[in-house]
Amino acid sequence: MSVAGLASGGIGARWWGWGDAPDGHVDGRLDEILNLLGAPPRPPPAAGADQLAPPASRLLETARGALLRHAEVDVSALGRSLACFGSAYPDLVRRRRGEASPAPDAIVRPHTADGVIGTLRACADYDLAVVPRGAGTSLVGGADASGIGQRSGLVVIDTTGLRRVLDVDPISRRATVEAGVPGPVLEAAVREHGLSLGHAPGSFERSTVGGWVATGSASADAGGDGSIRQLVTGLRLASPVGMLELHDAPLGGEGPDLTGLVIGSEGTLGVICEVTLRLRRRPGAQAGCGLLFRSFADGLVALRRLAQDGLVPLAARLCDEDETRLWMHAAGAEDAARGARTRLAGRGAPGALLLLADAGSAGTPGRRIEAAVAACAAEAPIELGDEPARRWVALPARDAWLRDALIDAGVLVDTVETAGSWKVLPALREAVVAALVGALGNPALVTSRVAHATPDGASLAVTCFAPAAEGAELERWRAARSAALAAILGQGGQIAHANGIGSHSARWLARARGRTAAGLLRALKSELDPVGMMNPGKLVAEGA
Amino acid sequence: MSVAGLASGGIGARWWGWGDAPDGHVDGRLDEILNLLGAPPRPPPAAGADQLAPPASRLLETARGALLRHAEVDVSALGRSLACFGSAYPDLVRRRRGEASPAPDAIVRPHTADGVIGTLRACADYDLAVVPRGAGTSLVGGADASGIGQRSGLVVIDTTGLRRVLDVDPISRRATVEAGVPGPVLEAAVREHGLSLGHAPGSFERSTVGGWVATGSASADAGGDGSIRQLVTGLRLASPVGMLELHDAPLGGEGPDLTGLVIGSEGTLGVICEVTLRLRRRPGAQAGCGLLFRSFADGLVALRRLAQDGLVPLAARLCDEDETRLWMHAAGAEDAARGARTRLAGRGAPGALLLLADAGSAGTPGRRIEAAVAACAAEAPIELGDEPARRWVALPARDAWLRDALIDAGVLVDTVETAGSWKVLPALREAVVAALVGALGNPALVTSRVAHATPDGASLAVTCFAPAAEGAELERWRAARSAALAAILGQGGQIAHANGIGSHSARWLARARGRTAAGLLRALKSELDPVGMMNPGKLVAEGA
Repeated sequence: MSVAGLASGGIGARWWGWGDAPDGHVDGRLDEILNLLGAPPRPPPAAGADQLAPPASRLLETARGALLRHAEVDVSALGRSLACFGSAYPDLVRRRRGEASPAPDAIVRPHTADGVIGTLRACADYDLAVVPRGAGTSLVGGADASGIGQRSGLVVIDTTGLRRVLDVDPISRRATVEAGVPGPVLEAAVREHGLSLGHAPGSFERSTVGGWVATGSASADAGGDGSIRQLVTGLRLASPVGMLELHDAPLGGEGPDLTGLVIGSEGTLGVICEVTLRLRRRPGAQAGCGLLFRSFADGLVALRRLAQDGLVPLAARLCDEDETRLWMHAAGAEDAARGARTRLAGRGAPGALLLLADAGSAGTPGRRIEAAVAACAAEAPIELGDEPARRWVALPARDAWLRDALIDAGVLVDTVETAGSWKVLPALREAVVAALVGALGNPALVTSRVAHATPDGASLAVTCFAPAAEGAELERWRAARSAALAAILGQGGQIAHANGIGSHSARWLARARGRTAAGLLRALKSELDPVGMMNPGKLVAEGA
Repeated sequence: MSVAGLASGGIGARWWGWGDAPDGHVDGRLDEILNLLGAPPRPPPAAGADQLAPPASRLLETARGALLRHAEVDVSALGRSLACFGSAYPDLVRRRRGEASPAPDAIVRPHTADGVIGTLRACADYDLAVVPRGAGTSLVGGADASGIGQRSGLVVIDTTGLRRVLDVDPISRRATVEAGVPGPVLEAAVREHGLSLGHAPGSFERSTVGGWVATGSASADAGGDGSIRQLVTGLRLASPVGMLELHDAPLGGEGPDLTGLVIGSEGTLGVICEVTLRLRRRPGAQAGCGLLFRSFADGLVALRRLAQDGLVPLAARLCDEDETRLWMHAAGAEDAARGARTRLAGRGAPGALLLLADAGSAGTPGRRIEAAVAACAAEAPIELGDEPARRWVALPARDAWLRDALIDAGVLVDTVETAGSWKVLPALREAVVAALVGALGNPALVTSRVAHATPDGASLAVTCFAPAAEGAELERWRAARSAALAAILGQGGQIAHANGIGSHSARWLARARGRTAAGLLRALKSELDPVGMMNPGKLVAEGA
């Protein structure tokens, strides 16, 4: 990528978003969505990064001096402006407008775990709230510089200074790395041992190990639930009361699992400094296939069978009919898609696309894909060959580029995630889709997909596209999201999956998990963060 | 079994232990161990259950009346005597002696989750400590009626009154059951749907779902780490501050995992009332094989390869040379064993036995065992056919019968469990074996086995046999166990695996997990059990 986007710290043309695609090209979905929405009015051009004017830093010189003993400190207007928000739709809208408030009073970048402990102590001494931040790719307001409350200031601890690969153990197939290591750096370090982490969330190119663990990220092509939870065997968390060392207990059994409390804690307990992760052998071969089912319902039956019979490959994604139609446009004039459309025309139904992909040692992925395809015979899908799967895995940032372009074109675009057992999944999906359609009115496009298929359930992601309502984008976005979350709660679904809770869903958490559970989460926080300085307003809202 | 043992509540000849084998027969290991130990002096015959005389119950009539509103209440001498201890070696020794102190002041048996909540409230009102108890099969003092401290009394909440199967969902392959349901009852309920839980710890015949979840039990033939953690999708915990409902969030992602906090909490946070569990298709076929390696080291290399290449079947257990020798005696005059001994004689080494077993749909287990055997070719083991594996899975209670018989014969017998990454496992094993040999002196027999092989590590169980030292059995046992735990800590291993911490290892937990982690566990307990009434002295010792 020649022009890096915001998340990597560079300033490009689309500095406010993921950044420009290598050739400036966005796939055919852009035109199709704009057609469906009747070419909504375009907002004014984006502000330039040089126009950002955050409020003045409140950081005292004495506090700055104290922080400098443990870390680099950046109080520049540009640095502070770029760390105001994450990468959610409302963040991008506000950044495009040139908003830079609330802004952190400083960005503090320690280079060791001890430096993080020292930084936290200095922050406590000077009554500063702390927002831990990796690459800033949160889609749920997880690293917003908000929630300062009555404190004297707020600093962002930038974890990207913690960038060492500390140990690779090829015998046990594990690596211990510092939290700020981004995905590609980790993969490069373990590749020489013939190993791979095999965890690639959508933000993989930029996001950090610490961010993955803090949010409980999931990888679409890691098999099963794809959760980073499956890979963490130990970690070190710098909390305001000291270092919490959760050492390697590979099989559990020493009482309650505390590692699982830190995973998904979203910076509210402290700063994750180091993580020990399970590795796998680097795959030598890939295979994939697209299957076009008569309907989403047919595809769901087949996907459940694959998952329950142990035949689901590392990656499987079932698109509903509207998402399948969009995908056909993304594919453009590709032969496979054209052929499928022709054959589908005879059926008179759009069909639902199941994408399958696998990786492993030579021969294995091909055999696994064949077995999966054979197990779908009862639903008689059309086989599209391996082209759809190859396109799927080739460009993970494609959806991020599309989103940037849609926002430039006046489109509201957001994704709500949930998960449910196979029994509740169909009703859950209908309820969320209906809620978004109802909240956004006409025209709106709402598409969905099921992934992370396990024997008892799967994840569901629902994406909505609608005219953005220039000037009132955030209100419209908030209304849509609230309607979707209420629908999820009404079906007993979970209000988040791989993206976390952040500030966007914090007021929903107590309702989703119950008062006793929310109280337990607050007690946990009080123990590690007695003065409540860590990532205020995230995960569980005050009073929620 | 015609004469049920203590754990099931009946009174048989070996009422103080697991109970008598169906035909009174214990396998050939008994004589071999007694030979090796030089026929230690036999202790006096066991007391009869009718000789038990617990201290008088301190339960006030008013308290009894309050408890009766929520549950059955048993204050009989026999009922209270049988609930003093669990099933660990020192428990069996004390019970054999006729000891029945400290005894609970009452056994309270609620029949609904609401009844448990009401019982806890009444216990709080009357200043009573509470010990939750399922089948009483704890091997680590997890349900001892000890630790009353300054309280006015102690009651055991017997969860076996919670015995309903509430729901079986064949679509999502899940069952929701009450905590007191024993293994065979659960399997019978889901069998009609063609499903199975596939979790069978050594105590399976008697132990309860609630006990499995409370201790974080592991099953030797469930694949991977075999932990009940993999199977729990939700639960209800009756705590002193109310019901903690951890609803079904199949893929996680709603912040920290609280379910993992209750699993392994060993009754210190409350009483587990209901659990929702993942099921699998009932296997239609089994296959197995025994492989005899030149040495334990060779076998370990092969087992690691199987685990890391995804070729390890559902069950795999590698016995060290001494355990292999014992196994040969268990097998008696079986052809396979005789043949192996003959062939091994030519090698001049005892060899190390790897037992492999698999289950699944027709054809699959056989293919998987073949693939596993093929993958061990580099170490050139002797194939013993399927007989060893069939014997292994046929009688899960065999070790319990052996233990009873050994105790009757004056032998101290105990097993210490740990786990470690592949890198640390060899040194960990050597250290634990050496510590036990050192603590027990001569004669002593110490054997070990590795199981639950995962890509990054495995479990290790070390069993010791030695003359019991009539009258000083408990001191000798305690010294051996302390030496083993100190050795584990010295190697950075975990101090427990599938049996839990209980009262036996509670004073070691803070040292194993660190002060910050132990403080966190105490804080979480304070939130759910503010007056500290739940299972006192278990998991984390006061002041440890």
